[in-house]
Amino acid sequence: MTAPRLDIVGIGNAIVDVIARTDERFLDRHAMRKGSMALIDAATAQALYAAMPPGQESSGGSAANSCAVAAGLGAAVGFLGKVADDQLGAVFRHDITSIGVTYQTKPLIGGHPTARCLILVTQDGQRTMNTYLGAGGAFAEPDLDESMIADSAILYLEGYLFDPPAAKAAFTKAAAIARAAGRKVALSLSDAFCVDRHRAGFLQLIASSVDIVFANEAEICSLFELAAFTDAARAAMDTIPLAVLTRSEAGSLIVQGGVQHDIQAEATTVIDTTGAGDAYAAGFLTAYARGKPLPACGLLGTQAASLAVIVLQRHALCSFCRSISLVYLEPSDSI
Amino acid sequence: MTAPRLDIVGIGNAIVDVIARTDERFLDRHAMRKGSMALIDAATAQALYAAMPPGQESSGGSAANSCAVAAGLGAAVGFLGKVADDQLGAVFRHDITSIGVTYQTKPLIGGHPTARCLILVTQDGQRTMNTYLGAGGAFAEPDLDESMIADSAILYLEGYLFDPPAAKAAFTKAAAIARAAGRKVALSLSDAFCVDRHRAGFLQLIASSVDIVFANEAEICSLFELAAFTDAARAAMDTIPLAVLTRSEAGSLIVQGGVQHDIQAEATTVIDTTGAGDAYAAGFLTAYARGKPLPACGLLGTQAASLAVIVLQRHALCSFCRSISLVYLEPSDSI
Repeated sequence: MTAPRLDIVGIGNAIVDVIARTDERFLDRHAMRKGSMALIDAATAQALYAAMPPGQESSGGSAANSCAVAAGLGAAVGFLGKVADDQLGAVFRHDITSIGVTYQTKPLIGGHPTARCLILVTQDGQRTMNTYLGAGGAFAEPDLDESMIADSAILYLEGYLFDPPAAKAAFTKAAAIARAAGRKVALSLSDAFCVDRHRAGFLQLIASSVDIVFANEAEICSLFELAAFTDAARAAMDTIPLAVLTRSEAGSLIVQGGVQHDIQAEATTVIDTTGAGDAYAAGFLTAYARGKPLPACGLLGTQAASLAVIVLQRHALCSFCRSISLVYLEPSDSI
Repeated sequence: MTAPRLDIVGIGNAIVDVIARTDERFLDRHAMRKGSMALIDAATAQALYAAMPPGQESSGGSAANSCAVAAGLGAAVGFLGKVADDQLGAVFRHDITSIGVTYQTKPLIGGHPTARCLILVTQDGQRTMNTYLGAGGAFAEPDLDESMIADSAILYLEGYLFDPPAAKAAFTKAAAIARAAGRKVALSLSDAFCVDRHRAGFLQLIASSVDIVFANEAEICSLFELAAFTDAARAAMDTIPLAVLTRSEAGSLIVQGGVQHDIQAEATTVIDTTGAGDAYAAGFLTAYARGKPLPACGLLGTQAASLAVIVLQRHALCSFCRSISLVYLEPSDSI
């Protein structure tokens, strides 16, 4: 096994976020579950967009966000995900490339447009997401860059990509490629409803080929269908080689074999806030790929998440922007 | 003359802003003049975009911003401007429509893509703009909605639209339609370099058919090629029926016939900051269309600009977003 050329290669939905502020009544009128991510079809996306206030577009997607933050932290990062050959696809390609992530997945031509996530931000700061997968759903085995995966210390998989069936199949293959090359495979459970949709598939993938699982309290409880976090953490200890469990104000818990590392939250850290979780994974994996001990990985994750939340609060809106900000806005705070 | 159905109809570039944070060295490397707007061609736009950090997209354009803010303040507003039949055009159409502005200009099909403005924000908060006009440059006489113009209390023209020749011709025609219907014609000088490019054309249009001119100090000085603001204000008094001169921290000066109204800035107001000027015009014209006295018009302009600056400082980035915020973010501060 040679030393890998990349620290992290992420696979996830390549999405452009469309973010607008709205109120609870808007969520009610459109039967949305506040704070969750729902998959919507093209017709629903069109109707919802028409009903939304003016928005701001920025590149997003959970694993893509993590890749951007990791690149901002100095990791060597690649990303695999499918956009269409259209203007929003060009926006995504520009953004992720210009932050230093290697991104070469061929665009989908003549099919659905680039994925977008219509995000409604309510006054309590919660983000309710409606994802039209579009071209992102076309990600499949031929899109796997086998040499990139084999040449990366960590393969990082976004749980959301279990939704499109071809992408799910590609996940399994990607994990096999990484393992065959002696690399680590990490999986983010994405959100509790995603775990509900794919519990059996997640457990099967974890059993066969996942080394590291990222989950928040709701996600790990959902995975094991247990109500109490301590029970779920114990189940994780028995099932997952390395579980990284983020707990909002309660910090994060790193569980490996019989050992637990309890990482304090920073004063500003609310780790399972959307985006902050992506940043946490980025920090953790950046340190992990460099062979740092687990508490140091947790610390860099916490710091990245904390910074993401600070920048999030200041900027209110965008997602990639938070990762950009890590590099461009906060040079003096760099971690 | 019947009572108009609309308060304001604006004509301007229909633009999607792409905003990124950068540093002074980036501006130097690309030979940009900080704080100004430069027109760029497609090849330059492509090269500059490739060199830029990740961006955030939001609908923009000077008159379009003013229209959005005015709609947010409760005015009945229409907008005329050209996008292409593409994704960014759809974004612009959605945004301006969803804030309540009537926008029905037919998109350009099979030509250049929707205009975009690549905006570099430096650490001092200054915005350096690079506009690729694209489809916006195709705005021409057939795009004038004559009944809308005739049915609006005020026609508001964006100086930047003097750059594409067909649009300039359409301006003259639009002004004639408005005047024939007994309506008022307002012109924003946009920026001092725009005035440099079109001084004779502006003076001719003002002499023939403009009732209200919006300008900041640099623009009004440039128009009359005078170094001192007081001299330029005197020249405005002799030449322009109603001149509304914004002066940053010094507030604004409204000059009509022999009478001057001096409007204080609010503590937070820096009126000629990009976007704040657009908001000032929106507030002023909203009050003016409702027959308010000039000091009240200046006050609403100042308040709108002030709010735009506050929201700008909080959000750091987007442009339409500031107008949205007037409606959605700051209900308790509504003016």
